[in-house]
Amino acid sequence: MSDLNPLFRPKSVALIGASSDPKKYGYWTAKGLIDSKFTGDLYFISRTAAADILGKKPYASISDVPGPVDMAIVGISPKYILPVIQECADKGVKALVVVATGFGETGPEGKELEKKIVAIAQKAGMRIQGPNCMGIFSSPVHLNASTIDLADGPMGLVLQSGNFGIDINFNAKTRGIGYSAWASIGNQMDLRFADFVEYMGQDDATRVVMMYMEGLRVASVDDGRNFLHNARLATLKKPLSAIKIGRSQAGARAAASHTGSLAGSEKIFDAALNQAGVVRVETPQELLDVGEAFARCKKPKGNRIAILTDGGGHGVMATDMAEPLGLDAFVLSEETQKKLRAILMPHCPIKNPVDLAGTPEHDMWVFDRCAEVLLADPEVDGLVIAGLYGGYCDFSEEFRQMEMDVAKSLVERANNSDKPVLMHSMYYAQQPESLTYIRKHGFPVYGSIDSAMRAMGALVGFNSRQEKIKEELAATPPQLPEDRKSKVDAIFKTVRSQNRINLVETEAREVLRAYGFDLPNHLLATSPDEAAKLFTEMGADKVVMKIVSPDILHKTDAGGVILHVDSTAKAREAYNQLIANGRAYKADADVFGVMLTPMLPGGIECIIGSSYDSTFGPSVMFGLGGIFVEVLKDVSFRVAPVNTPEAGRMIREIKGYPMLTGVRGQSGANVPALEEGVSRLSYMVAELSSDVAEVDLNPVFATENGIEIVDARIVLHPTENK
Amino acid sequence: MSDLNPLFRPKSVALIGASSDPKKYGYWTAKGLIDSKFTGDLYFISRTAAADILGKKPYASISDVPGPVDMAIVGISPKYILPVIQECADKGVKALVVVATGFGETGPEGKELEKKIVAIAQKAGMRIQGPNCMGIFSSPVHLNASTIDLADGPMGLVLQSGNFGIDINFNAKTRGIGYSAWASIGNQMDLRFADFVEYMGQDDATRVVMMYMEGLRVASVDDGRNFLHNARLATLKKPLSAIKIGRSQAGARAAASHTGSLAGSEKIFDAALNQAGVVRVETPQELLDVGEAFARCKKPKGNRIAILTDGGGHGVMATDMAEPLGLDAFVLSEETQKKLRAILMPHCPIKNPVDLAGTPEHDMWVFDRCAEVLLADPEVDGLVIAGLYGGYCDFSEEFRQMEMDVAKSLVERANNSDKPVLMHSMYYAQQPESLTYIRKHGFPVYGSIDSAMRAMGALVGFNSRQEKIKEELAATPPQLPEDRKSKVDAIFKTVRSQNRINLVETEAREVLRAYGFDLPNHLLATSPDEAAKLFTEMGADKVVMKIVSPDILHKTDAGGVILHVDSTAKAREAYNQLIANGRAYKADADVFGVMLTPMLPGGIECIIGSSYDSTFGPSVMFGLGGIFVEVLKDVSFRVAPVNTPEAGRMIREIKGYPMLTGVRGQSGANVPALEEGVSRLSYMVAELSSDVAEVDLNPVFATENGIEIVDARIVLHPTENK
Repeated sequence: MSDLNPLFRPKSVALIGASSDPKKYGYWTAKGLIDSKFTGDLYFISRTAAADILGKKPYASISDVPGPVDMAIVGISPKYILPVIQECADKGVKALVVVATGFGETGPEGKELEKKIVAIAQKAGMRIQGPNCMGIFSSPVHLNASTIDLADGPMGLVLQSGNFGIDINFNAKTRGIGYSAWASIGNQMDLRFADFVEYMGQDDATRVVMMYMEGLRVASVDDGRNFLHNARLATLKKPLSAIKIGRSQAGARAAASHTGSLAGSEKIFDAALNQAGVVRVETPQELLDVGEAFARCKKPKGNRIAILTDGGGHGVMATDMAEPLGLDAFVLSEETQKKLRAILMPHCPIKNPVDLAGTPEHDMWVFDRCAEVLLADPEVDGLVIAGLYGGYCDFSEEFRQMEMDVAKSLVERANNSDKPVLMHSMYYAQQPESLTYIRKHGFPVYGSIDSAMRAMGALVGFNSRQEKIKEELAATPPQLPEDRKSKVDAIFKTVRSQNRINLVETEAREVLRAYGFDLPNHLLATSPDEAAKLFTEMGADKVVMKIVSPDILHKTDAGGVILHVDSTAKAREAYNQLIANGRAYKADADVFGVMLTPMLPGGIECIIGSSYDSTFGPSVMFGLGGIFVEVLKDVSFRVAPVNTPEAGRMIREIKGYPMLTGVRGQSGANVPALEEGVSRLSYMVAELSSDVAEVDLNPVFATENGIEIVDARIVLHPTENK
Repeated sequence: MSDLNPLFRPKSVALIGASSDPKKYGYWTAKGLIDSKFTGDLYFISRTAAADILGKKPYASISDVPGPVDMAIVGISPKYILPVIQECADKGVKALVVVATGFGETGPEGKELEKKIVAIAQKAGMRIQGPNCMGIFSSPVHLNASTIDLADGPMGLVLQSGNFGIDINFNAKTRGIGYSAWASIGNQMDLRFADFVEYMGQDDATRVVMMYMEGLRVASVDDGRNFLHNARLATLKKPLSAIKIGRSQAGARAAASHTGSLAGSEKIFDAALNQAGVVRVETPQELLDVGEAFARCKKPKGNRIAILTDGGGHGVMATDMAEPLGLDAFVLSEETQKKLRAILMPHCPIKNPVDLAGTPEHDMWVFDRCAEVLLADPEVDGLVIAGLYGGYCDFSEEFRQMEMDVAKSLVERANNSDKPVLMHSMYYAQQPESLTYIRKHGFPVYGSIDSAMRAMGALVGFNSRQEKIKEELAATPPQLPEDRKSKVDAIFKTVRSQNRINLVETEAREVLRAYGFDLPNHLLATSPDEAAKLFTEMGADKVVMKIVSPDILHKTDAGGVILHVDSTAKAREAYNQLIANGRAYKADADVFGVMLTPMLPGGIECIIGSSYDSTFGPSVMFGLGGIFVEVLKDVSFRVAPVNTPEAGRMIREIKGYPMLTGVRGQSGANVPALEEGVSRLSYMVAELSSDVAEVDLNPVFATENGIEIVDARIVLHPTENK
């Protein structure tokens, strides 16, 4: 049983702080609970009330309630709350919804109070939603413990802001769609997004999970990774969509002032949502656009859509919007065009969009006949009907009737098809009965074309998002050598024993080698003579020599790299030069020596890296070197680890990707080798996350044959994590 | 007097095809004309009606009308229309609105008919709107000759689709905003966008010009350039905004099927709108978002905006949206923060967004006091109020009254300020009286944050768009040599006399030189000996030698370029090699010889080019060479000519621009020299537009000192234009 069952499926509920004063929250909530006809036992608790509240006798304390209480809603001010929480714990209450405000959101004192509450709850095995929240709604048990007029329906919604709950609900009411489960989660002092996503993912009454997020509350990155994991599992059951605000720098600053949630990297958050299959949208309107389609529509097999319109301009506009949303408004087959031509007059365009161009004014059934042809076309994965449907009823009673009849037929067609159908209507706001019928019995109707198209775009990606997650969950890491941990631990121990966090390149190369990266041999010289000796030993035509010092991280800036060393004499000379340059750069630098490596023939410059995000922990990054990273910031991120197909998507999503396929007469790179490298590094940093803060393989030369790591930098956390 | 005054300000109007049958278009229009209380004389013409139509005696023919007729609405089917048009011409009607359908949109026959109609009209000096349109509306004379329920207001709207007219009007009605001038322009057989933009630009009743465009109808590029010119002049008077559909390839294909309008390059169209200061939007909703703000708001001095919110999440969302819209949600000054802190409780964030965080529930006047501080701050250019305003009235009668009082004060403040104020409210759809008051007497209120922010973004750019146009209209071209035309004409004459359209490089260089481009000397050798002699004559350490042949345009592919020629012997050798390579590439190539130029030291590779757009004629293009153009398609376009500041914007808007400022230790380029080059080429192609179809200066080396044109290609139109 989920920890959240007592919240969403309680058999008994107590409202602590119930009131008969219609100006008080304790009254509104009491009224909401009664009006929603909660299926279980309902108790009102009021320390002060003598008379009945809404016809119910109040109890002075929860301890006085005769039977067990699964869940309690707590509307008690911070000053008086601790004993009440203790009473709930003593009573054996399984879950609390603390709707009161004045806790962590007000400052350090409030945060301390939250800790005390959580301590009591944890001891008693009691879970808490809130504080500073707007309550909870659950349709299967007819529970509305919010002050908002929420209706039953197929949507799950978790919000970090009660106001957005109201905002979205206005819109949902207009659309005639409601909720299976709704929770305003406030300060998340105990239960967090991860918990609600887990519950709603499993809840059969919920067909889509929607979130409004300002940031995750994390005690450690485990919380972030737990959210990612739960969201992935939820996506395997049903679609997820989220608003996450704080995208811009100014927005992140504002979000920090608002909720105090420490923001990790926005790019990593975006990547995490993407990896979990969560469709990210920007506005409450878009959240419902997508959520309604997710809740009501079939999921298309592919991205080829047909557009059927009686407004030529609307059809073109829909077509325009297809491509950026990943939809293909393809040219219909000759066969389908032939069938359509048999239905439509010669002046009607039929390639896609199919433009009825005035014909419905004579015969509205053309909508239905064309929809039949389009839904039967095996090349068509989904259908968008756009334009004036819903407005014909204004012409005459005969038209009104016909519009209803056609609507019924369209609904039947859509319901019998395994393809999604969405409609846009100019007459949406007028709510004509034909559209109301379609929305209620068939498919979503939108008032703007971009809404309809965005929703179709979200539907189209669902199957591939699920596939990606299944593949990722089933993935086996690249083969990692058995003895890697002992090797790496020894290196980290040395580094930490010297009070360092920066690995020198020789150490970084050993760590990478321990994880199975194939790096060319390196040798460390500590005198000019040894440099000469090692040059010979190396047996390469040319070697690169680099200074090795934990105090000189930017070796090139310090004159710490010499290329093209091709003789013992030059090796000796280079050694002296590098040591001199190092001293000149930083007189007291601790110099370990000079490293020799065979000089590599070059390739396409890439960067593979990792940083440690405060929310999601180890991440992995890929980009092309040079101007691509420095000028164009053309890089991709993921939460680590990633399997090779996902690494492949990282590589392909950068704008400079064509460089790797070979352009301007240059040969391309071995992309599978790059994928393997990115994936391997991601597994490495995931496994070493308690030590490794940062990895920078830069440059990595990608060639036709494989990849060559030319320089490597690893930085540890100041102290080991956990 | 504008040609369109008889359309929008007629003293007398005739409806040809009036009807008393409520099912007919001729009835609806008649009713619209009567209901709108047209201020002038109104005549109904009906060949068949015996009885009065809506209380008015119909005339059998327009010739029967006793007085003069300024404008006639023609609802006569194509079969019978020609004699009617002739009658109108004979009657001295100044303008027609042909609302009937079945003309050019149906095929070649319809197009022929359009030509005949236009011929009659032109002969009589009569202008025509339509056909295949939904009529016209003009508030100053109370004319509603459309079948849509349009209301008075400050907006001008020109549409290529009547359906969008209905669509937008639904939305406008909800917003309580109407039109000064409205025209559905259909097939544009005579009057086109350019004419309507000109009229509405000058019309005092119109405060914003909005357009829905599928494409310009152009007989020649003069029409496209005329639109650009008129739109520029209109922007100097008031803001313009447009939807232009057909942005994607699939969309352009669909638009072609829909209106048959030949699409020029989408990129050039986008550039033209930008050059004319027209704010391009994507949806009918956005058009009104922006249009309403344009019609009702002051234009801000800069882009620094303050966000005042009582919904923390809404504030963050607004802040997030600022940056991509060119708005700066900056951190407010210490001084302003101090003033806000004196008003607000310690837990309220005041940096920007200013978050009232629950305080209005105790005292709604905080809205007004904070707005006062923010509007008085000289750093603040505009104010967005976002969140729950409009919803407080639900609490109590006292709150309802207070919400109205605060609304009145906010309106007064906004009206007394020279800064724009916009509001977002969650309660927009409920239309509470406070919001209705604000919208009617003060400033726009939007139902979604993105609408409000987008509108502010459009407002913010208006002044700079005007400045840009003023500067462009006042610009003097780069100094162009006096004798350029005679020199160039001679070259073109030679080229055309040889039935060529491709200039060889020596010719292209001469054309450029004639226009004042500073190119290094070139010499043409026609034998190995001459090559040797010219090498010496050139006096350069190294020269580049290239084959010169109108049949070998891709010289590099043909082995037609040899670099680093540094002796007479090598010059001789290179000559032979080039000729041999040329022959091997194309045996029958007409080879003019081999060109010698001094070899240049190199620089940052750029491309400056020009192509001839079917709508707007000569254009100019700028990009960086190599991967920037080939892989990243990172180029900018303009309709030619452009002044140097605009050329500067072209250069700065490419993503690779930082390359030109110097990155990775390389020195940057002389950007003013590049600007001069782009501008000079743009004036050259504008002046030579009847001959020149394409110019490709590729590569151009940009160095610290200036630019060096390394290769030049010019292609002429197959036949001279005009």
